[in-house]
Amino acid sequence: MVRVEGGITAPEGFLASGVACGIKRRGKDLALMVSQRRASAAGTLTTNALRASSVLWSAQVLRRGFARALVVNSGNANCCTGAQGQRDTSTLARWVAQRLGIRPQEVLVASTGIIGRPLAMKPIREGIDRAVSGLSRHGSHRAAEAILTTDTRPKELAVRFGLGRSAITLGGVAKGSGMVSPRMATLLVFLTTDAAIDPPLLRNLLREAVSESFNAITVDGETSTNDMVLLLANGAQGAPPIRQGTAAQRSFSRALAKVCQFLAQEIVRDGEGVTRTMRVAVTGAISPQAASCVARQVAESLLVKTMVAGRDPNWGRIASAIGASAVRVHPSQLTIRLGEVVVFRNGEPRKVNHDRLLSAVDQPQVAIGIHLGSGPGNAQMVSGDLTEGYVRINAKYTT
Amino acid sequence: MVRVEGGITAPEGFLASGVACGIKRRGKDLALMVSQRRASAAGTLTTNALRASSVLWSAQVLRRGFARALVVNSGNANCCTGAQGQRDTSTLARWVAQRLGIRPQEVLVASTGIIGRPLAMKPIREGIDRAVSGLSRHGSHRAAEAILTTDTRPKELAVRFGLGRSAITLGGVAKGSGMVSPRMATLLVFLTTDAAIDPPLLRNLLREAVSESFNAITVDGETSTNDMVLLLANGAQGAPPIRQGTAAQRSFSRALAKVCQFLAQEIVRDGEGVTRTMRVAVTGAISPQAASCVARQVAESLLVKTMVAGRDPNWGRIASAIGASAVRVHPSQLTIRLGEVVVFRNGEPRKVNHDRLLSAVDQPQVAIGIHLGSGPGNAQMVSGDLTEGYVRINAKYTT
Repeated sequence: MVRVEGGITAPEGFLASGVACGIKRRGKDLALMVSQRRASAAGTLTTNALRASSVLWSAQVLRRGFARALVVNSGNANCCTGAQGQRDTSTLARWVAQRLGIRPQEVLVASTGIIGRPLAMKPIREGIDRAVSGLSRHGSHRAAEAILTTDTRPKELAVRFGLGRSAITLGGVAKGSGMVSPRMATLLVFLTTDAAIDPPLLRNLLREAVSESFNAITVDGETSTNDMVLLLANGAQGAPPIRQGTAAQRSFSRALAKVCQFLAQEIVRDGEGVTRTMRVAVTGAISPQAASCVARQVAESLLVKTMVAGRDPNWGRIASAIGASAVRVHPSQLTIRLGEVVVFRNGEPRKVNHDRLLSAVDQPQVAIGIHLGSGPGNAQMVSGDLTEGYVRINAKYTT
Repeated sequence: MVRVEGGITAPEGFLASGVACGIKRRGKDLALMVSQRRASAAGTLTTNALRASSVLWSAQVLRRGFARALVVNSGNANCCTGAQGQRDTSTLARWVAQRLGIRPQEVLVASTGIIGRPLAMKPIREGIDRAVSGLSRHGSHRAAEAILTTDTRPKELAVRFGLGRSAITLGGVAKGSGMVSPRMATLLVFLTTDAAIDPPLLRNLLREAVSESFNAITVDGETSTNDMVLLLANGAQGAPPIRQGTAAQRSFSRALAKVCQFLAQEIVRDGEGVTRTMRVAVTGAISPQAASCVARQVAESLLVKTMVAGRDPNWGRIASAIGASAVRVHPSQLTIRLGEVVVFRNGEPRKVNHDRLLSAVDQPQVAIGIHLGSGPGNAQMVSGDLTEGYVRINAKYTT
């Protein structure tokens, strides 16, 4: 597997563009991505009960399993906007379909930004015209820019790997953890590949990759109303369809995992106010779900996050967060590590070298290891620290 | 019911003191409270799985239902300290018992401070001697000072109410949401009364009062390893014992609710970095538990907390937090209020006067109203905003 340039337009048969149409005060805010042939489409959508109308719309498209285009606006989440919001989303899909000569039901829609305000449709209509005119085999970077909000940089990756005599390419762009005016963390991820894969298998492979990547990160514990991870496979490379359980599927899954994990890490690193990250690895839980629950409790603990921000090896905060989770924990079987240093084992604190402990927390990514001693369940969670920067970004703004 | 001076020594037959013995770098750090006669004792203890040894010890005392004394140290949580920590706690109880001529099993122990470090026992032994010598009918304020950590002020209240021909007094002190070196939010509340109440009824009345007060506040969503609310009733006033279902019991419960709610509010107002508070009131849930779950999700949301800090009426963050809770929410039945302003009703955003909205969030306590339209369940939760001050307090410290 090699890394290649080009993001979501690196795979064969995908075009993209990004334009500024005035939804945000400045910068690009409308992205368009088109597959030159019908693509299998899979997605994972937010579990928030107050789903944005774009999420409801795209869920319908994904149920049919195929798509030709994706339109994304930043600056307005079009969420909690009632019946008008739903009409606006379908109008958006219809406009894109008309300009491309495809059906509205083949157009995925995503959005991110302020909640509860109606979309300004007029500038978007004009923006769609320009976005269609600007579609390009090299448009990924512009699209990656147009989906950003408080992110400080676009997040893109593409990889290529051999599949029999073919070379398959998989690309992705992501945005996460920020907003414009005002702010709401939204995770948007768009992945493309020129491999051929039927929708049901595509869904399974995406679900697996997401659970180990985007569902294993957290910036501030807020599940957005607009989160969306989409994967389009258009088969444009001409290789035979990938089947479950084959070497081809395993190669594809490895590439998908790599792209998803890279973009997930990028989202945390670029999280609002984040200066360093932590990886919480839990082993020995009664189940993977229990491990994940403990990992999340630690990764989202404000006291652990501020501890990481302050490079303070105050592991008691980790112990307290572990104990506060919904999982039954037995102190006498519990081991806690900061970096390589075991600070607590089987109910007893350990004498540790303070310099080694200080060095364990003075890392770009602080490693926290937790062994529960209750079973075979493992899970990891990556999150960022909590800094004054996060508060500044989210409090200093007034609508 | 009238407010009186004297805190936990306002009721008849209670003495208290507070001294500095060097566990903290400065200030008082050892509190002692004694009932001149055996008192019924009830308590609610932390649900954290990694309970401090003081919590384990006091649980045993409470199981027997009676106590004569309470010793509290601040500056060291004596938690995750293994077998040595347990021995130290029982030694503490034994020292207090010896000096007072009572049994160790009648001594409640509480502690708050850094986790994972052994207690320095020598200065404490000497501190207990001075605390016993200093016991006074006017010692509540010194005791209230000695249990503080990052709190900025002591929290005390006493009330008096008539019961037949007697006047019953109920007093309390509390600390919450701070630490010394380094920091960990711990909630400690000690209540005294000269009413006579048997332990089983005392437990029930305390549980009810706590669920509506201390269990309905949150500063940073961290459940400490050392949380403890204790209530001692020594009957020193001479009134006949209070029985379940009587007018006397209802009077007592009202007084208990008042003291608990006052101290709970004080804890939030004095929370780390808190500049303003919010009251999240949820109605129309399928159950009180469901209402409480939604209220907590909103009250602990970092984006809602920073919104309150920034006086930003960005109610989309409230909607998103509601949707992210584990409770099934139907947007078409949902109503959201900021102050008196309805911003969202039955799935549709409402046109609102922006000045009224700005004024709704520019309050010392911001009122957030949520109606779910699913049933009769109600709950409230009070929390504080999230400011750069919180991050500074918790990150700028290095062990």
